[in-house]
Amino acid sequence: MSATKEIEKELNVGQRGPVEHERRDQIIKSADEHFRKYGYSKTTVSDLSKAIGVSSAYIYRFFESKQAIGEAICAMTLGRIGDTILEIANSDQSASSRIRKLYKAMVDKGFELFFNDRKLHDIVIAAIDGKWSSVVGYKEVKLGAIRKIVVDGRESGEFERKTPLDETCLAILETLAPFAHPILLEQNDPEGLHESASAVSSLVLRSLAP
Amino acid sequence: MSATKEIEKELNVGQRGPVEHERRDQIIKSADEHFRKYGYSKTTVSDLSKAIGVSSAYIYRFFESKQAIGEAICAMTLGRIGDTILEIANSDQSASSRIRKLYKAMVDKGFELFFNDRKLHDIVIAAIDGKWSSVVGYKEVKLGAIRKIVVDGRESGEFERKTPLDETCLAILETLAPFAHPILLEQNDPEGLHESASAVSSLVLRSLAP
Repeated sequence: MSATKEIEKELNVGQRGPVEHERRDQIIKSADEHFRKYGYSKTTVSDLSKAIGVSSAYIYRFFESKQAIGEAICAMTLGRIGDTILEIANSDQSASSRIRKLYKAMVDKGFELFFNDRKLHDIVIAAIDGKWSSVVGYKEVKLGAIRKIVVDGRESGEFERKTPLDETCLAILETLAPFAHPILLEQNDPEGLHESASAVSSLVLRSLAP
Repeated sequence: MSATKEIEKELNVGQRGPVEHERRDQIIKSADEHFRKYGYSKTTVSDLSKAIGVSSAYIYRFFESKQAIGEAICAMTLGRIGDTILEIANSDQSASSRIRKLYKAMVDKGFELFFNDRKLHDIVIAAIDGKWSSVVGYKEVKLGAIRKIVVDGRESGEFERKTPLDETCLAILETLAPFAHPILLEQNDPEGLHESASAVSSLVLRSLAP
C-alpha cells in the first residue's frame, strides 16, 4: 500500500461521496492552488467555488467543510512525501545509504511541498494546530520506513542489534524532527539545513554501528 | 558569565535607561505575570501600566515598546534555561551523565518556563516568529554547553575523537530540537517526551562511543 493510501485511511473526517472520483481530485487540485495563492485561512468555500467554476453545492457533495478540503490536501501533500520515504526505505541500497537519503529527502521534499515562493503553506499550520488525522498517519509512515531500514541493517550486519528495536526507531524518528517539521524548516535557511541533515544522519549512522 | 548575561548581551533592541534597576526588574516581573494571564498579543502598554500601577510614561522610561518588554521577558526566560544548561555542562560529573541530564533538563525546564497551566506562553510564539535576538543568544548558549561536554568527554577518553568537533556539536544541537523548541514541546505529551528524550540521549551516547 502506498503512503498516500495509508494516510488517506486515517482520513475519514468530513469526506463524502466516492473517494476515487475525477471531479473530487480536480476540486482538491484547484483548491490547493487557490489556498497557496490567497491563503487557506482567508478563503471561504464560496470563494473557492467561484475560483474553480462550480457551485458551492457541488463542492459540498464531496466535502462537508473547508477543513475537509484542507484535510484532503494535507493528506495528498504528506502522502507524496510519504511515497518518497517508502520508496527510499524499500530500495535495495545499503541500509546506511538509505538512512542518508531519508534525511536528505525530508529537506528536499519538505521545501518542495510545504513552501511556495519561500512562504509556508498555511494549511500546514492549520493541520498541525488542529492535529488533523493525516498528520498522525504521516508519523506512522515515517516510523514504518525507519523500522524497515533498521531491521534490514540489523539483518545484513550493518547495524548493531543490542538496543531494543523500538527504542532505536523512536530515537531516529525524533532526530528527523528538525527536517520533517514545517515550522522548523521555515526557521532555517535551506543551505544550513542540508549541512545539518548530513551531520545528523552521520551521527545516527555512528550510533547504529555494530 | 551566566547565560542570562550572555543572552542579555544580544538584547539591545528598545531597552532604555539603566539595565540594573530594581524598578525595571519589577516591571518585567509584573508584565510577565500579566502576559501569562491575559496573553501577550492582547495586551497594550496602557493595560500593563494600569495593572502594574505605574504610568505608561514610567514604563517608556525603560522600554520603548511592548515588544521591548517582551524581549526582556524572553531573555530572562531563556536565560534561566541557559543557566541550568551551563550548570550541567560545567558540573564535574562524567560527560555521558551530563549529556543525559542535558536532554532531561530541556524537557523539564521547557515545561516549567514556556507553559502556564499547559498553555504556551504566547510571547514565545512572537519571539520565534519575529526572530528576537534573545533566541539567537540562547542557541549560542546551547551550542557552547554541548561543546564543553563533548570536549571534556574527548579529553577523558569517554567519547570518540575522529569526527570533526564542529560537526558533532551541530548534530547534537539538532537532536535537541524536539525538546528545546516550544512548539514541538507543545505538540507532545510530557510522558512521551521524557521517553523520547531518554531514547535520543542514548542514541547520541552510542554515536559518541570511542
